[in-house]
Amino acid sequence: MITATPTPAALGWQHHHILSLADFSAEDFQTVLTTAASFEGVLSRRTKKVPTLQGRVVTTMFFEASTRTRSSFELAAKRLSADILNFAPGTSSLSKGETILDTAKTYLAMGTDIMVIRHGQAGVPQAIAAEMDRLGTGVRILNAGDGQHEHPSQGLLDLYALCTTFSAEAPNLADLKGKKIAIVGDILHSRVARSNLWALTAAGASVHLAGPPTLVPTEFLDYFGDDRPITLHWQLEPALERADFVMTLRLQHERMAQHLLPSIREYHQQFGITRDRLAGCNPGVRVLHPGPTNRGVELSSDVMDDPALSLVSRQVTSGIAVRMALLYLIGGNLP
Amino acid sequence: MITATPTPAALGWQHHHILSLADFSAEDFQTVLTTAASFEGVLSRRTKKVPTLQGRVVTTMFFEASTRTRSSFELAAKRLSADILNFAPGTSSLSKGETILDTAKTYLAMGTDIMVIRHGQAGVPQAIAAEMDRLGTGVRILNAGDGQHEHPSQGLLDLYALCTTFSAEAPNLADLKGKKIAIVGDILHSRVARSNLWALTAAGASVHLAGPPTLVPTEFLDYFGDDRPITLHWQLEPALERADFVMTLRLQHERMAQHLLPSIREYHQQFGITRDRLAGCNPGVRVLHPGPTNRGVELSSDVMDDPALSLVSRQVTSGIAVRMALLYLIGGNLP
Amino acid sequence: MITATPTPAALGWQHHHILSLADFSAEDFQTVLTTAASFEGVLSRRTKKVPTLQGRVVTTMFFEASTRTRSSFELAAKRLSADILNFAPGTSSLSKGETILDTAKTYLAMGTDIMVIRHGQAGVPQAIAAEMDRLGTGVRILNAGDGQHEHPSQGLLDLYALCTTFSAEAPNLADLKGKKIAIVGDILHSRVARSNLWALTAAGASVHLAGPPTLVPTEFLDYFGDDRPITLHWQLEPALERADFVMTLRLQHERMAQHLLPSIREYHQQFGITRDRLAGCNPGVRVLHPGPTNRGVELSSDVMDDPALSLVSRQVTSGIAVRMALLYLIGGNLP
Repeated sequence: MITATPTPAALGWQHHHILSLADFSAEDFQTVLTTAASFEGVLSRRTKKVPTLQGRVVTTMFFEASTRTRSSFELAAKRLSADILNFAPGTSSLSKGETILDTAKTYLAMGTDIMVIRHGQAGVPQAIAAEMDRLGTGVRILNAGDGQHEHPSQGLLDLYALCTTFSAEAPNLADLKGKKIAIVGDILHSRVARSNLWALTAAGASVHLAGPPTLVPTEFLDYFGDDRPITLHWQLEPALERADFVMTLRLQHERMAQHLLPSIREYHQQFGITRDRLAGCNPGVRVLHPGPTNRGVELSSDVMDDPALSLVSRQVTSGIAVRMALLYLIGGNLP
Repeated sequence: MITATPTPAALGWQHHHILSLADFSAEDFQTVLTTAASFEGVLSRRTKKVPTLQGRVVTTMFFEASTRTRSSFELAAKRLSADILNFAPGTSSLSKGETILDTAKTYLAMGTDIMVIRHGQAGVPQAIAAEMDRLGTGVRILNAGDGQHEHPSQGLLDLYALCTTFSAEAPNLADLKGKKIAIVGDILHSRVARSNLWALTAAGASVHLAGPPTLVPTEFLDYFGDDRPITLHWQLEPALERADFVMTLRLQHERMAQHLLPSIREYHQQFGITRDRLAGCNPGVRVLHPGPTNRGVELSSDVMDDPALSLVSRQVTSGIAVRMALLYLIGGNLP
Repeated sequence: MITATPTPAALGWQHHHILSLADFSAEDFQTVLTTAASFEGVLSRRTKKVPTLQGRVVTTMFFEASTRTRSSFELAAKRLSADILNFAPGTSSLSKGETILDTAKTYLAMGTDIMVIRHGQAGVPQAIAAEMDRLGTGVRILNAGDGQHEHPSQGLLDLYALCTTFSAEAPNLADLKGKKIAIVGDILHSRVARSNLWALTAAGASVHLAGPPTLVPTEFLDYFGDDRPITLHWQLEPALERADFVMTLRLQHERMAQHLLPSIREYHQQFGITRDRLAGCNPGVRVLHPGPTNRGVELSSDVMDDPALSLVSRQVTSGIAVRMALLYLIGGNLP
């Protein structure tokens, strides 16, 4: 029963905002997993709602459009009985010369308790969080994707999808210890990869990155320091060899225009995940993709549609439970 | 009392999805009428809500924009206490290369129970329904307009608006038996006309179509088979003669560019509904239009604004009750 | 306790619609202040909701886009437990040839109780209200900004923000009597200025307008008649001298293109509010701006961000309480 869920403080939770997974401890990751699992129990009930955030206002501020991620946060917030405001920059004050901080302050003044922020530039959620703290407000900020920097809720839902393959009711971070996880594709430009790398290495997994040199440069590793077990490959085979999980990343079409890739077709031939290529993986290997997918590019349709192989739907479902957990953990002890 | 409403199964309801009115039996039409009337009772109460779909997720997926139809479905779903997600393709993954089926599967994975789908191409809701069934999901699909094929909820709300002119509390399909109903305008391109034709002929009405030959081709009748009492006219007068109801259809401006019509003005002179032209109809004739209307084109303002003649507002109001009924009938026995 | 709030009628409230502040009596203004203060008490409670408008439909119809104002009305309506429909003209029937009155009638037929209307042309909310009354509907219209005419809810929230500086719990119109209030900027094109002028002069404040002659023409005063104490200035200093409050107005960039202003920089030099320029004001002077602000144009950042000077955030917060009050006053006695 969720009514018996301990308060965030009792769970040892100390993050005021969720901006990056770089500063998450193993305990933090485990708390998210456990809390999300308890909310997944709520989602299987007939009414699917808890009054946790009743009267609270969750404002989504997506300066970069993303219907699916916004829908996921919206449904999670509704499940927690919050009121939701959507800020749509397309038709907004931004085009009228207002600064982003002033927009945030406006929604603060309206009574927003939690801001879920996506922006095309790295650092915007952090800047808003810093300003909110400086002003002494109690507002919580949840980074829903900032440029190529981080996408913490995606990293956490991926982690949850992975760990629930071992135990659906009691996902355990330790189950990933020593597992080999390949991340394939446009690592350089991927905030999903960055958030996942913090989470997976904290879990003790061995992470292998694969992609063309233009998208997986050696300098990339400097970002994570020497003590994280991350290996780079410019071919797919060594990354997939005996892998337990294969995470594919979305390929943006604009990479072609930037001359970082010769062609979509060539990319698929070299790095696309097909059933044949998975032969070298460990038995029971599972494939992930953050969506939206380009079928036949990052992975073949038969892989994506095989429930024995693909965790893609499971990732989306995990998103609701994990985002409920995140909103609860940062919003459950609002003053 | 709606709490005394029988379950959909007890009402003999067997449709899992609502995709087309072609396969509706007379009993099906009557069940919709009766259920909608009971919901209209709810709408007249002070609180206007029933908990029927509490905890359920209704996702509107309008690949073709239509604020009014989406608002109608949204309000109907709110009256049933459902949670609503709106998928807006303009700012969505579709522009990122995702297939429509994958978009639907994403919203399925988030926990959608009923998808209300509009698409500019015929067959899209059917394709999504087939895929959902193939995957063994319990998701229900409601076609909110697919290309020029069908618009079942519009056909049913028109039917409800017609039948409630005979009895507001107990609308009866049999009341339309033998009635003459003229449908005027761009029949060829109209999904509204197609859905209405299935409903009206099932009710035993005599349907007369009128419009220019380019928009009412003789081949059109092949679609409905020989046993449906449908008559074509290329002049307005014989269609209106002794008619009990006149349904006007929206004229799309693009028909001019396609050289299917000489001009708006000429169209109005030949097929626009005016008070004078209604003189040959039966006493008590009523005029319908699915909206949005082009005043002075499909019908004159004095006809549209005369409450003794026009059912236009009544159609919109009927839309809420009928859509509540449809969501209830397909969603009321969700697992 | 809000449950002890008197009915609008018991409060002496007689306005069916809120279209303009020109016809508000001093009692009306005071009723709004008192009601808003009681709702501000609701907003400070944990649950923040009252069932006042449960089952009622509030439809926002913003023909001119404004995310912040729409969000404010939406949250106010949610706090009163109303159902909300948003009409978005961008993707709507309007582009399909429907008239604005027909759009309003469509939402009326769906069951709308209160329409919150913004339109780029003056008089549209009034025209819709007149038509709704003519048809004998009980629908209430709230003008959320019509062209350069009025923006009553902004005028009232500004009034509330002003009066609560004297007493937060019991704001009193009489506290503004004899106060000097400067309104600075593009008076001519400002609906905010017009609504404020009716409110402030009704309160007995002395209002001084300041701006370049192109934006503060002498003819402007004719609009308000001779008996309102309004003074024009083409320099900033006399307007600010011994002022108790300074209201800045948003400068639209298009004024430059219309050759009404030489340049943004020159405007700021002559009429921008800076800390230095406030030196001649009365001690305790407060500065307002309806937002969104152009920092460094209408007012300097240090003024805007100084909580001892700026009421900008207070205005936004007041917006929720005042809009709750307005929806309650016109919607609380719906049939």
